[in-house]
Amino acid sequence: MNKAILLIQCPDQKGIVAEVSKFLYSYNGNILEIDQHVDEELSLFFMRAAWELDSFSLKKEEISQRFELEVGAKFNMEFKLHFNFPKPRMAIFVSKLSHCLFDILGRHHAGQLEVDIPLVISNHQNLQSVVEAFGIPFYHIPVTAATKVEAETKQLELLRENEVDFVVLARYMQIISADFIKNYPNRIINIHHSFLPAFVGAKPYHAAYERGVKIIGATAHYVTEELDAGPIIEQEVARVRHHNTISDLVQIGQDVEKVTLSKAIKYHLDRKVLAFKNKTVIFY
Amino acid sequence: MNKAILLIQCPDQKGIVAEVSKFLYSYNGNILEIDQHVDEELSLFFMRAAWELDSFSLKKEEISQRFELEVGAKFNMEFKLHFNFPKPRMAIFVSKLSHCLFDILGRHHAGQLEVDIPLVISNHQNLQSVVEAFGIPFYHIPVTAATKVEAETKQLELLRENEVDFVVLARYMQIISADFIKNYPNRIINIHHSFLPAFVGAKPYHAAYERGVKIIGATAHYVTEELDAGPIIEQEVARVRHHNTISDLVQIGQDVEKVTLSKAIKYHLDRKVLAFKNKTVIFY
Amino acid sequence: MNKAILLIQCPDQKGIVAEVSKFLYSYNGNILEIDQHVDEELSLFFMRAAWELDSFSLKKEEISQRFELEVGAKFNMEFKLHFNFPKPRMAIFVSKLSHCLFDILGRHHAGQLEVDIPLVISNHQNLQSVVEAFGIPFYHIPVTAATKVEAETKQLELLRENEVDFVVLARYMQIISADFIKNYPNRIINIHHSFLPAFVGAKPYHAAYERGVKIIGATAHYVTEELDAGPIIEQEVARVRHHNTISDLVQIGQDVEKVTLSKAIKYHLDRKVLAFKNKTVIFY
Amino acid sequence: MNKAILLIQCPDQKGIVAEVSKFLYSYNGNILEIDQHVDEELSLFFMRAAWELDSFSLKKEEISQRFELEVGAKFNMEFKLHFNFPKPRMAIFVSKLSHCLFDILGRHHAGQLEVDIPLVISNHQNLQSVVEAFGIPFYHIPVTAATKVEAETKQLELLRENEVDFVVLARYMQIISADFIKNYPNRIINIHHSFLPAFVGAKPYHAAYERGVKIIGATAHYVTEELDAGPIIEQEVARVRHHNTISDLVQIGQDVEKVTLSKAIKYHLDRKVLAFKNKTVIFY
Repeated sequence: MNKAILLIQCPDQKGIVAEVSKFLYSYNGNILEIDQHVDEELSLFFMRAAWELDSFSLKKEEISQRFELEVGAKFNMEFKLHFNFPKPRMAIFVSKLSHCLFDILGRHHAGQLEVDIPLVISNHQNLQSVVEAFGIPFYHIPVTAATKVEAETKQLELLRENEVDFVVLARYMQIISADFIKNYPNRIINIHHSFLPAFVGAKPYHAAYERGVKIIGATAHYVTEELDAGPIIEQEVARVRHHNTISDLVQIGQDVEKVTLSKAIKYHLDRKVLAFKNKTVIFY
Repeated sequence: MNKAILLIQCPDQKGIVAEVSKFLYSYNGNILEIDQHVDEELSLFFMRAAWELDSFSLKKEEISQRFELEVGAKFNMEFKLHFNFPKPRMAIFVSKLSHCLFDILGRHHAGQLEVDIPLVISNHQNLQSVVEAFGIPFYHIPVTAATKVEAETKQLELLRENEVDFVVLARYMQIISADFIKNYPNRIINIHHSFLPAFVGAKPYHAAYERGVKIIGATAHYVTEELDAGPIIEQEVARVRHHNTISDLVQIGQDVEKVTLSKAIKYHLDRKVLAFKNKTVIFY
Repeated sequence: MNKAILLIQCPDQKGIVAEVSKFLYSYNGNILEIDQHVDEELSLFFMRAAWELDSFSLKKEEISQRFELEVGAKFNMEFKLHFNFPKPRMAIFVSKLSHCLFDILGRHHAGQLEVDIPLVISNHQNLQSVVEAFGIPFYHIPVTAATKVEAETKQLELLRENEVDFVVLARYMQIISADFIKNYPNRIINIHHSFLPAFVGAKPYHAAYERGVKIIGATAHYVTEELDAGPIIEQEVARVRHHNTISDLVQIGQDVEKVTLSKAIKYHLDRKVLAFKNKTVIFY
Repeated sequence: MNKAILLIQCPDQKGIVAEVSKFLYSYNGNILEIDQHVDEELSLFFMRAAWELDSFSLKKEEISQRFELEVGAKFNMEFKLHFNFPKPRMAIFVSKLSHCLFDILGRHHAGQLEVDIPLVISNHQNLQSVVEAFGIPFYHIPVTAATKVEAETKQLELLRENEVDFVVLARYMQIISADFIKNYPNRIINIHHSFLPAFVGAKPYHAAYERGVKIIGATAHYVTEELDAGPIIEQEVARVRHHNTISDLVQIGQDVEKVTLSKAIKYHLDRKVLAFKNKTVIFY
């Protein structure tokens, strides 16, 4: 089914739901899902509406302009219009660890992710053969302190050539520069291997072990300039015990990481995420 | 804040959200929450809308009739209008086990439950003193096979006298008759001490122990004529291990039961539950 | 590190732990892990002891006999002695669904599973190319009502030729015959896509949807003659909501299935599972 | 059943389990539970053994000395011997919030906690009547910056008079002085209303809301001089969503707090906790 999805943010006011739903109804739209949220503290209104496109009497190309004229301008809305076709294009960045990458490739192969994956980029070569077995081009771009700028330039070129919509860092162990991030605001998803804000930075499983926590976790978030501080999309946890070594924590944690990252990708693909400040509204 | 809450069920059609939100807007209603769900299989539409009453230009008494005229009739809606005042009145039925009862009384005492509790009815006497310490009248109505009809008659009288809106069975170990249930359709909440539909009937912890399950659970549901088969409102689980005895399962389970039941009461009080067939839509 | 692992079952008596630990100490064994459990109901004693083999003064081949003489006979023990080398050999049976298979192959590729996988057997061909990309032989053995006996004969031959120790049914959608099972008692691990004993048999997600449960689950168990009734090794659950379709339940459930199955395989490989009657003791 | 429980810490060496179990067996002890753990990093050995006292051929009073002579001295052990009688004596400190207090009193009333509660101490008066309805003496000791030393002196006097073994801070909103803590090392259990080490200090739910986390938690830990940094006994979490206000987080969190604290009390009472450095070994 062809769907349109509208994501809206604006100052909270009366009548927004009425006007948006009237707009959709007036052009014969069959609403599939409608969700709204008001952040009372900030007096901000958020909304997501999805409707069937086939019976809609506006052309795909006209919708944005008409909506701005008839509804958006009146409420001072920021809005984005998405369609569930063509499929979005996702690049995966990975280093040596395979668990998140394989989980994504497995889901994609099983037809669970409505996304095209035109390429995988890695600063190592060890995962090349499996990626290619899934029929996906693999680019090896080594990164050192000296070559970082150059490497990012190459990466950005590849993303542009491949018309990539968003990037997933599937345990990519390099810090992304502010310049790179600016190209994909709230469109780079990272998996951090701890329950943020506990244990920011490197080696969070070691830190968790030292602190003797009874639960570990993982956090999927949009990448922003401040390290590990971007809007959180999803978090999951798992129980650990005193007899678990650091190596156990790593393995238990990897299961949490891959499930958390895949959920975040799914929410992003379904256009269920609205980011503002360092938070997200997730209409699942 | 004074709120009105509308719960709607009807055949799925285009334009429902538009018409409902237009109605609210036209009388100056400030929508606080709006949720909708379509059961594709049954082509049924469900909706919940909550709005501020103080600025609304219809009187409390007029709303139902106007809504029926302007919206409900057009879409063949079944709807219920609720207000968050006066507080609903809840009766608690309990036998000998105290954990669910105390959990509810504790929350009520802490001001977490927007409900009045005019009475507790029990077929035993052991909990009388604590109930009364919380300032709530306690009625002891013993039940035997011989006196069951008479006991239920007394119970119903007490419920009517106390203008009770709904009943919570907080581990009340008696089967409620079909005649009694008819008086409170989808308004009797029971906690069953297993993860339904596993282990229906009596002694579910014994059955779970025998089967060697690794997870146990509890189920809060509306009571219907068929035992343990009513619409499920909430379920929770807890992990158990081989070294847990039946008595451990009972204790671990009681924590799950009390949290599950209290969540179900909260959803019911917040008018977030729509029951249909043997299922529920819960707009939390 | 080379390890020996002893799994013991016997009638409960005094002095068992003392005798077993004395035996290990007397031959200079460094105990790494020791766990015991008493089933009070059945007066059965269970124990698992793991120790370093390198400094142990008995030869690998002598241990069983000596233990029987010095300890086992005295307490009427059933015991099994395992070593963590050479690696056990595991066969995977799969049908069309890939999620459990890929999860296992991904872990194996990442070096997380101390096991050899000499072959994958399927009644379908769609997963052949990816299995082979992981360097593992793939055998296509179609099964129909008419060819079932013949197919199982072929399967058993392959298992014997490949010296397989145990079999994992990674969503293999065929019922295994009693004759087949007898060859691998408590050595065939199945993943059932529900929280057993709820929803035995086929189409459990459909049944869960119909019943309107709020939590779904998966169960890894040893296969016995009675369908879905074998000893449970591990169970996991996930929360679902009213808006989840059957297809959502399937996807959410698949994440639970793969994690549950992989945990069960890990427990089995680590020799942490003792099965008795239709239950398990898991020393994790 | 009368039980003895031995908790042991010592440098890791060969033969400890053998010697301890031989000791118990030589005096006709029936071992009920035995658990051991080796911290590889620190080369520390931890053990817990529980056995039936009635058939044991040493007198209760002799055990410690004999064990030191025959086993402890040889391995340089620190050990503690406990009995499950008479019941330990627990004091509860509370401020205004009732949820943890009621949860403990409810369990105690239901016979689930093998403990005597000789008194509740609070810096406020609002919970006096319910505490007294449970038949427990209530002491109101206000605390201000000026009276803090004096207040703690009074508290310590009451604890001594009542022969209190350990103290539970059931959301007691005052910082305990180092001098006070020295009287009850690893015998003061606090519930912190966040998933430590995230959100130390005051107002953790506000901080969690600001950060936009998707999961909140609670941490029960022994109190040490460094605030919120003592050995963690238990942690639990709950999922939250964007629509949850700070007040929702508080309510959802309170359920987590009370369950977490009660679990920690249970582990402590069952002598299942061994604390070392800022960590715990929990033999559950």
